[in-house]
Amino acid sequence: MKHVYEIAVVHGDGIGPEVCAAAVEVVKAALGSGSPLRFTEHPAGAEHFLKTGQSFPEPTFQACRAADAILHGAGGLPGVVYADGTEAGLDFTLRLRFELDLYANIRPVRLFEGVQSPLSGVKAGDIDYIILRENSEGLYAARGAGALLRGEVAVDTLVQTRVGIERIVRKAFELARQSNGAPRDGVRRVTCCDKANVLRSYAFFRSVFDDVAKDYPDVATEHALVDAMAMHLVLKPGHFNVIVSENMFGDILSDLAAATVGGMGMAPSAEIGAANGFFQAAHGSAPDIAGKGIANPFGTILSAASMLDWLGLKHSDEKLSQAAERIRRVTQACLAKGLLSADLGGTSSTRQITHSVCDRLAAAA
Amino acid sequence: MKHVYEIAVVHGDGIGPEVCAAAVEVVKAALGSGSPLRFTEHPAGAEHFLKTGQSFPEPTFQACRAADAILHGAGGLPGVVYADGTEAGLDFTLRLRFELDLYANIRPVRLFEGVQSPLSGVKAGDIDYIILRENSEGLYAARGAGALLRGEVAVDTLVQTRVGIERIVRKAFELARQSNGAPRDGVRRVTCCDKANVLRSYAFFRSVFDDVAKDYPDVATEHALVDAMAMHLVLKPGHFNVIVSENMFGDILSDLAAATVGGMGMAPSAEIGAANGFFQAAHGSAPDIAGKGIANPFGTILSAASMLDWLGLKHSDEKLSQAAERIRRVTQACLAKGLLSADLGGTSSTRQITHSVCDRLAAAA
Ligand SMILES: CC(C)[C@H](C(=O)O)[C@@H](O)C(=O)O
Ligand SMILES: CC(C)[C@H](C(=O)O)[C@@H](O)C(=O)O
Repeated sequence: MKHVYEIAVVHGDGIGPEVCAAAVEVVKAALGSGSPLRFTEHPAGAEHFLKTGQSFPEPTFQACRAADAILHGAGGLPGVVYADGTEAGLDFTLRLRFELDLYANIRPVRLFEGVQSPLSGVKAGDIDYIILRENSEGLYAARGAGALLRGEVAVDTLVQTRVGIERIVRKAFELARQSNGAPRDGVRRVTCCDKANVLRSYAFFRSVFDDVAKDYPDVATEHALVDAMAMHLVLKPGHFNVIVSENMFGDILSDLAAATVGGMGMAPSAEIGAANGFFQAAHGSAPDIAGKGIANPFGTILSAASMLDWLGLKHSDEKLSQAAERIRRVTQACLAKGLLSADLGGTSSTRQITHSVCDRLAAAA
Repeated sequence: MKHVYEIAVVHGDGIGPEVCAAAVEVVKAALGSGSPLRFTEHPAGAEHFLKTGQSFPEPTFQACRAADAILHGAGGLPGVVYADGTEAGLDFTLRLRFELDLYANIRPVRLFEGVQSPLSGVKAGDIDYIILRENSEGLYAARGAGALLRGEVAVDTLVQTRVGIERIVRKAFELARQSNGAPRDGVRRVTCCDKANVLRSYAFFRSVFDDVAKDYPDVATEHALVDAMAMHLVLKPGHFNVIVSENMFGDILSDLAAATVGGMGMAPSAEIGAANGFFQAAHGSAPDIAGKGIANPFGTILSAASMLDWLGLKHSDEKLSQAAERIRRVTQACLAKGLLSADLGGTSSTRQITHSVCDRLAAAA
């Protein structure tokens, strides 16, 4: 337990500042007057790059590394690109992942009451699983390192290591053991998603998975090829508990999964390393709706709740875990009451949602 | 026009022989007594590997290369693997793609009347687009070439070339121009799906796409990141006309797309090069239901129809194109009448479906 937790806050681009401010307010409301969290803001992103030529200033990196946790809105703007065509505004997210070795990207997929799934016949509770995305290697290891020869041949290299696979797979089994909302058939299960039939590095992923699985005989296991998995997430989402996969596949599958529970506005994430934790919604900066006050803040609010969970567990600080639980309960209540932003078919503004959540949290305190 | 078209038939593994036999029967029925097609069977696959140590015998390769077209059931069996962990039974499909340079993998995605989409509120006609998967490079270029160092580090290399991207993108624009079933808003559109924001080779894909697009001012264009695309295929499938992407992404997206129109049983494909054409359903060998007579043959039947289209166009042979059109019409009629296999929620066997299709074709002749 600590007296003060330093939270490094980076607003970022597009709707980032709106949803980030909402999450900070909600956390403050959940913790009340004696809150041990101290928020400091730091610049990064595409806007900052346009102004200063730097997308991720060194002082921001130092502050993030030193902080107890990092909270981010969203980063990047289309068209703000480096000479190689990749986006400058993504430095913050992508460099943090690699430089702080945030190897575990935990993406809960849950259909809340009040939110309509595009899948027919699916109701709240039917979808409740975790996509655990390896976040420190895989195809993303090629970022900034790809080659383009004579403008004719481009090459990116996918790297998977035993150490990297082992730790993410262990994390998957631990998450399966912790999950209270086990899948509907009552089995705790980890699904290894890969492309072992075609590519050596994914066959290696699977073989390391099989090795590690022996240490968790109480958890059921299975393999799924990534293409089949994309289908399963549409046809039998209720089957899954924890899905573990390489970085690039996790990126694709987690957006797909989000689509089945209300879209990117309902997709929180937690990116965790041995020392640091980084929390942001999985959505982008959505410049088309930025500044309109209509962004869905729940992805960031739920990510902030994960931040409190993580801090609470790390520092044996129950107050924080309880606040996280209250935020999730109030989120559930607000959604069930029909407090929906435009992306969910509603008319509530970011501010209206934030105020309602804060009011209910104040009442619950 | 030719007097005889040689079709090399490979049954393969699992349900392969059942669905392949069904498609051959249907093609024969569609062309009637004077059929110019001559079918010869050749061995390949996991079963053949188990028996002989070879999954793709050289005579089979020679026959396929010399044939006017290649028709395949399905290949591969889980557990029948090489020392590196990848599947031996996939040699036939994967080596054909590379050795015959079958660069264009055309995967039509269409919701037929009578088939229930898992997406709520979606009906026949609402989903009708093509996923054009680059089939000769990308991450699949690493197959058989990945490295594993000291059992600790595995590496696969993704390669994308200007020549390879250019030809697949041109194909995408040509398909968009041909498409009679343009998307619902009446716009012919090619969507470039990549991960240009993060990886150089995908940024290169996008830049070549933008260059080529200038030659097709009559076709609308747009970019979509692969993660967002996975979401779009669930949330707004009616928006798309032709989607073009790198090999690995195309693999994932086409299974996902198939899930929205009835599953892998309804997913035909055509793999086309400058000289050769290779036709098979996109599904695997489904060993769990092999030999039970319940496999859905429509994926292979529709792939065989694409074969007739392709042969008809190549050899200016209208009989063939007309037969293809009849097969699609009869398929539509049978599905609308409720002739559904178990995967579609029905009880019709592979034989029942095949007989009904053939009877109707005979009546239509
Ligand atoms: C913004 C982008 C760099 C990021 C990714 O590709 O990982 C995002 O899509 C995500 O899923 O976190
Ligand atoms: C069977 C397998 C090798 C193949 C692939 O990965 O390309 C299949 O999934 C496909 O989509 O054609």
